[in-house]
Amino acid sequence: MREDQPLESQTITMLGTGLIGDFYTMSLHHHRSRDRVGTVYSRSQERADAFGDRWDIPNRTTSMRDAIEDPTTSVVIVALPNHLHEEVIGMCAAAGKAVLCTKPLARTAQEAERILDVVEEAGIFAGYLEDRVYTPELLKAAASVEAGAIGEVTWVRSREAHPGPHSAWFWDLEKAGGGPIMDLGCHCIEIIRHFVGKGNRPLEVMCWSDTLVHPIDAEDNAVALIRFESGALGQFEVSWTFRGGMDLRDEIAGTDGTIWLNNFLRTGFEMWTSGTGSAYVAEKAESESGWMFPVGDEVVELGYADMFADMFDALESGTEPQETFYDGYVVNAVMDAAFRSASSKQWEPVEVEWRHGSTPRISKEPHFYDGHTVIKKEILPDGRVKMILRDRDDGSLFDLIVSDDA
Amino acid sequence: MREDQPLESQTITMLGTGLIGDFYTMSLHHHRSRDRVGTVYSRSQERADAFGDRWDIPNRTTSMRDAIEDPTTSVVIVALPNHLHEEVIGMCAAAGKAVLCTKPLARTAQEAERILDVVEEAGIFAGYLEDRVYTPELLKAAASVEAGAIGEVTWVRSREAHPGPHSAWFWDLEKAGGGPIMDLGCHCIEIIRHFVGKGNRPLEVMCWSDTLVHPIDAEDNAVALIRFESGALGQFEVSWTFRGGMDLRDEIAGTDGTIWLNNFLRTGFEMWTSGTGSAYVAEKAESESGWMFPVGDEVVELGYADMFADMFDALESGTEPQETFYDGYVVNAVMDAAFRSASSKQWEPVEVEWRHGSTPRISKEPHFYDGHTVIKKEILPDGRVKMILRDRDDGSLFDLIVSDDA
Amino acid sequence: MREDQPLESQTITMLGTGLIGDFYTMSLHHHRSRDRVGTVYSRSQERADAFGDRWDIPNRTTSMRDAIEDPTTSVVIVALPNHLHEEVIGMCAAAGKAVLCTKPLARTAQEAERILDVVEEAGIFAGYLEDRVYTPELLKAAASVEAGAIGEVTWVRSREAHPGPHSAWFWDLEKAGGGPIMDLGCHCIEIIRHFVGKGNRPLEVMCWSDTLVHPIDAEDNAVALIRFESGALGQFEVSWTFRGGMDLRDEIAGTDGTIWLNNFLRTGFEMWTSGTGSAYVAEKAESESGWMFPVGDEVVELGYADMFADMFDALESGTEPQETFYDGYVVNAVMDAAFRSASSKQWEPVEVEWRHGSTPRISKEPHFYDGHTVIKKEILPDGRVKMILRDRDDGSLFDLIVSDDA
Amino acid sequence: MREDQPLESQTITMLGTGLIGDFYTMSLHHHRSRDRVGTVYSRSQERADAFGDRWDIPNRTTSMRDAIEDPTTSVVIVALPNHLHEEVIGMCAAAGKAVLCTKPLARTAQEAERILDVVEEAGIFAGYLEDRVYTPELLKAAASVEAGAIGEVTWVRSREAHPGPHSAWFWDLEKAGGGPIMDLGCHCIEIIRHFVGKGNRPLEVMCWSDTLVHPIDAEDNAVALIRFESGALGQFEVSWTFRGGMDLRDEIAGTDGTIWLNNFLRTGFEMWTSGTGSAYVAEKAESESGWMFPVGDEVVELGYADMFADMFDALESGTEPQETFYDGYVVNAVMDAAFRSASSKQWEPVEVEWRHGSTPRISKEPHFYDGHTVIKKEILPDGRVKMILRDRDDGSLFDLIVSDDA
Repeated sequence: MREDQPLESQTITMLGTGLIGDFYTMSLHHHRSRDRVGTVYSRSQERADAFGDRWDIPNRTTSMRDAIEDPTTSVVIVALPNHLHEEVIGMCAAAGKAVLCTKPLARTAQEAERILDVVEEAGIFAGYLEDRVYTPELLKAAASVEAGAIGEVTWVRSREAHPGPHSAWFWDLEKAGGGPIMDLGCHCIEIIRHFVGKGNRPLEVMCWSDTLVHPIDAEDNAVALIRFESGALGQFEVSWTFRGGMDLRDEIAGTDGTIWLNNFLRTGFEMWTSGTGSAYVAEKAESESGWMFPVGDEVVELGYADMFADMFDALESGTEPQETFYDGYVVNAVMDAAFRSASSKQWEPVEVEWRHGSTPRISKEPHFYDGHTVIKKEILPDGRVKMILRDRDDGSLFDLIVSDDA
Repeated sequence: MREDQPLESQTITMLGTGLIGDFYTMSLHHHRSRDRVGTVYSRSQERADAFGDRWDIPNRTTSMRDAIEDPTTSVVIVALPNHLHEEVIGMCAAAGKAVLCTKPLARTAQEAERILDVVEEAGIFAGYLEDRVYTPELLKAAASVEAGAIGEVTWVRSREAHPGPHSAWFWDLEKAGGGPIMDLGCHCIEIIRHFVGKGNRPLEVMCWSDTLVHPIDAEDNAVALIRFESGALGQFEVSWTFRGGMDLRDEIAGTDGTIWLNNFLRTGFEMWTSGTGSAYVAEKAESESGWMFPVGDEVVELGYADMFADMFDALESGTEPQETFYDGYVVNAVMDAAFRSASSKQWEPVEVEWRHGSTPRISKEPHFYDGHTVIKKEILPDGRVKMILRDRDDGSLFDLIVSDDA
Repeated sequence: MREDQPLESQTITMLGTGLIGDFYTMSLHHHRSRDRVGTVYSRSQERADAFGDRWDIPNRTTSMRDAIEDPTTSVVIVALPNHLHEEVIGMCAAAGKAVLCTKPLARTAQEAERILDVVEEAGIFAGYLEDRVYTPELLKAAASVEAGAIGEVTWVRSREAHPGPHSAWFWDLEKAGGGPIMDLGCHCIEIIRHFVGKGNRPLEVMCWSDTLVHPIDAEDNAVALIRFESGALGQFEVSWTFRGGMDLRDEIAGTDGTIWLNNFLRTGFEMWTSGTGSAYVAEKAESESGWMFPVGDEVVELGYADMFADMFDALESGTEPQETFYDGYVVNAVMDAAFRSASSKQWEPVEVEWRHGSTPRISKEPHFYDGHTVIKKEILPDGRVKMILRDRDDGSLFDLIVSDDA
Repeated sequence: MREDQPLESQTITMLGTGLIGDFYTMSLHHHRSRDRVGTVYSRSQERADAFGDRWDIPNRTTSMRDAIEDPTTSVVIVALPNHLHEEVIGMCAAAGKAVLCTKPLARTAQEAERILDVVEEAGIFAGYLEDRVYTPELLKAAASVEAGAIGEVTWVRSREAHPGPHSAWFWDLEKAGGGPIMDLGCHCIEIIRHFVGKGNRPLEVMCWSDTLVHPIDAEDNAVALIRFESGALGQFEVSWTFRGGMDLRDEIAGTDGTIWLNNFLRTGFEMWTSGTGSAYVAEKAESESGWMFPVGDEVVELGYADMFADMFDALESGTEPQETFYDGYVVNAVMDAAFRSASSKQWEPVEVEWRHGSTPRISKEPHFYDGHTVIKKEILPDGRVKMILRDRDDGSLFDLIVSDDA
């Protein structure tokens, strides 16, 4: 719990006025509610003014330097295209301002490493804005996994798919650094890391990608497998050609349980409409009539509210946020391996300076019955117990029905 | 949007230390985050201290008067059993403090009316803490309905059922004023009012109730029908004998669409566990192994976060909150009619001083085709249009297949 | 298991060529597969021929008498509008033919009783074609309830709603005998009876109905409550104004469990389409693009396959089918009470010649702890057990926390 | 429709008395209903007798040769472990009997090819018992895809996972030929082929597998990617360590739509039970209390009913069944490539004698606007159309907002 002291609050410079800037500002003004965006930067004065009017922000500028060095600003939020992150974060470091950077941190692990270095040398607070590991469902699911509710994690699937992003720069391979692997895969990788354990080293990656539908240079579909030190497998599926809305699903299998998360299209809110009236349903919804699956409060459901609460609580209490620039760097290292694998058609090692320790293999201590290794035990409809056993001497397998639960 | 001014914040006295007090305080400290509970009251010093320690509250008292009149307190929250509401709200009115009262407002409409009078005479801010009309899903669904997405509302079902409340006083007919009709029906009635329109007058109620399972004086199951001025039907189902968790579902049918809300048991978060480890799943969850349906952030999902945001925004801006004591009074009037009907076995009128205007009947302007009244039009699998028509002269009905969409 | 004997098979006369005739014939020819429709009757030779061609039926006639008395016919299926059932079944009885009659059996209990009498006097085999109690899910759910999986049944909700039937006669109050109460309520009543127990006498009915949308004389919406001898409540909801497809849902609450059946709109088969191509989805589907919920094999999912298997197995083995004309008569008696209640605005008794015995009240043997009546027992998050108890002397209620599961 | 002729029916020899033999016989006797198992073979007379008693089968034998050559037998069903398929099918070919073989056809493509040769030389009817492509949902979904409802298929995921099979031989690498890749992957591959098109050649496979939990020689988890000639990606996930029941899910993405099938755990039938009473829920259900997801008629839901209807209709009409031994051979070829890839850690080619033609690449004809390539078009909340365009000369990308739907 918080101590009884005067409330601290932050004045923020928002760099960028795109969709993500809107989501961030809505979350900051509405949810934590005690911080304000004081300055907004855009390349275009017109867009800066429109954004400023929309969110009641006093200072609007087309000078990146002025925006960052604004003396009232305590935190800079980078909501700009990927190719600008390195330069801008360098300016924040020089100005000694706390910086929060939109995902992905960089376009390559090399770029991410340079960003990490500059920030650590400057000693500024730096948070990685990976919202999807802050959704209320993921936070609770990850807590359940940590509490042992599903045993040891063996497999995690994270899927993010929709019909493609809203701004031109995402589709530009040079500026974005990749297609959906970069745009969506970064979310999936960090979700997977939360469930297999962030200290569980990603060893190697196998990736398929192809450009099946859109006339672009980047991939528009990809599937990748990530092998972790414990033996667990991560699997991400990303697409810019999915039809039907925004498909955000995660599945976790463990030795003692299973978790299924459907974050967007099936959350208990279902609507059929003939198309009369008109109502915004959710980001990237494709239909205006028929069955739809609206989202209650998108800013909460997408994790923005809890993400900024964590970031600012960490900043104010002098601790590390849940998501750091180091995490962003690890994500880039995994994506690098995915891109290499997509062209080499082989498993590619994840090249990363690992700061965490080592993780043991998923344990599989065999059980024994009457001197034989137990392969499986199941209860028959009549209540008797059936065992599949392996003879320890000759290795042969056989069924055995025992009268009660041994 | 908020203007650029120093942040206002509230210091709160919490009356009561039960489960609802915990939910309220968690929401206040964590979500709007700029207000604090400064004083807590309980009949027992031990419980007051435990609550104060849990939530870092400086003042703990067993004196109701001291708690309410505390000079640092700007808002009093009544989280006490139903039979204490009238007396305590009277003390708040006398002290000139803003008061927020837990649902239901009172045990009868007569009691509610007296509370309403005392508060309106004192001119204090008064908010009715009906959390479930503030869930993100309901807020969005109600906005969709208002925007015309499902046409005119014809029927609303609101269901709340679980295995029974956690404290002894709920089960005491004298203190509570009723069983699940009082405990849960009050939620359902206000949810129904949101969808048929709060200005749509409830005319009469038909109710069945019975005590089927628990050895108590109050009912443990009830179903009621509420007829509104527009012709729309509200239907609530409440139970203290439901097995399987907390069943909170709402369904809305309109002339152009349908909404289904499943607020708790099917929200896209599904877990199977063998029962290893241990994890709190959600309020009133009944299982510790097998398939479970956890809730992400209960305080958000149950509406507490948005409810207090609305209450305090209204208080600070000098406007009315979404839920007022008048709403609480209307709810009591509907429950009174339900109790009367359960014993008279007839429809009973809702006796209420109605402050809103009148609502027209659901419109059913007939369409015509070739001079005949159209009963139904449908598209056949082969693309032709089939009509069911009624002859305007002799009233006879007949099918007609027309070649294209007329 | 069947004995090893030559296969018996049936030759059928189908009276009527509407949608239900198609469903029946598809089921007969495809599923049990050893019986054939040999003769089809329609008022119109053109429709009889079209139907005969569609289903490869040799004899087509516009003479009802010829169709029924056809010497090759062993079973007559009545798939005609409600007002013709009595006359036609009389002709079957006179001809000594087995008869299977589409739901509802009649328009009133009086009419149903006359039908029952004529059939019982003639001694012919008579089956009531109530398909929805034969769906694979309902058969299994009912078996689970009978096996005690949810304890004693306290409440059953059966809902059937869609945008209205396909033929003109349904909308004609004289021919049909009612609106959705008659068309859909008959399904719901029999489903409810399966779960509360067919030997559990329906005592009284409370019903609301209204004509909210369509320009017709019959109701287009209704909700009814049915009180059974055991204390269990049945609740049916029927509508011809529902939007979004065919809403067929059943919910059963018991003292030890819960069952939810969604028979049509959420069965694990989900499709989003932009509307390219063209595919029949399911009966009464309203959309051609967006999210849709197709049904695998409608004839199986709606119960037709299992219904005819039961009917013909019973006929061939000389036993009673699961659904008899007596069941149809009971359903009519409940609907009569519903219509009376809708106009009297009171609970109305079900007037029926009851052939089953009597059913005891849902039992509620109280448990005791330390001499007090146990109201509720729950396990706290820390593992301790909390009890809500009632003092047997003064009736007061109190909480008690005990250290382990007592 | 069937012609009007005396009904043909089959007398069957069932080889094997395991779980699959029970499922087959239940389906044969109950669903198509006009065929009978006349002879059953088991290695053990005791098991043959028990099976014969259970299903009312007159002839029971421990002689494989007698069972196959039984003069009353018209069809032999092979329900034996994988390592026996080749020998037994050879005996059927020698005896000139129609043969239906359980999946997988063989343990390797080489073995499958020898089986295919012997059957084709003998000219006997041979059907491949791949039940899961016959479920009512899959049949309808595949028909929708063929009708163009989701455009061109880009990606298919088929998942089958459960806690492991019921008999010892499955766990024996020599007898089974593999772990879940062999046991479950064969289902998934054929499901994937149905959606990408059976004439769409599988080109290469990438597979991960590991033995994470069970003390066995075979893998217990695997994920594989299959690249088809059209560019479509198939993805199968199989596991013998899944907890929570039987996870059978398929997802299909196309350029114009999406299909999600959940065949077992979420089919609209949901039950919570405290564990009183006792009811068989479904194959491999793991829980006896809490929330459960029963299956209506397993034999229908798993495809057995429609599978045998197709097999016997084909046999009687002299046509090919939907699933032939050639299909079984293709499946083995894909599994071979998966096993090779799991050890080489590279994509491995599918080595198969391809009998179908060639399939063109998924088309991606670009659209143009004002001379620029359209990357994406979307409708803004205010109704205007936003386009992301690519300059055809310099390749640069830019956003353009146009006033109406161009």
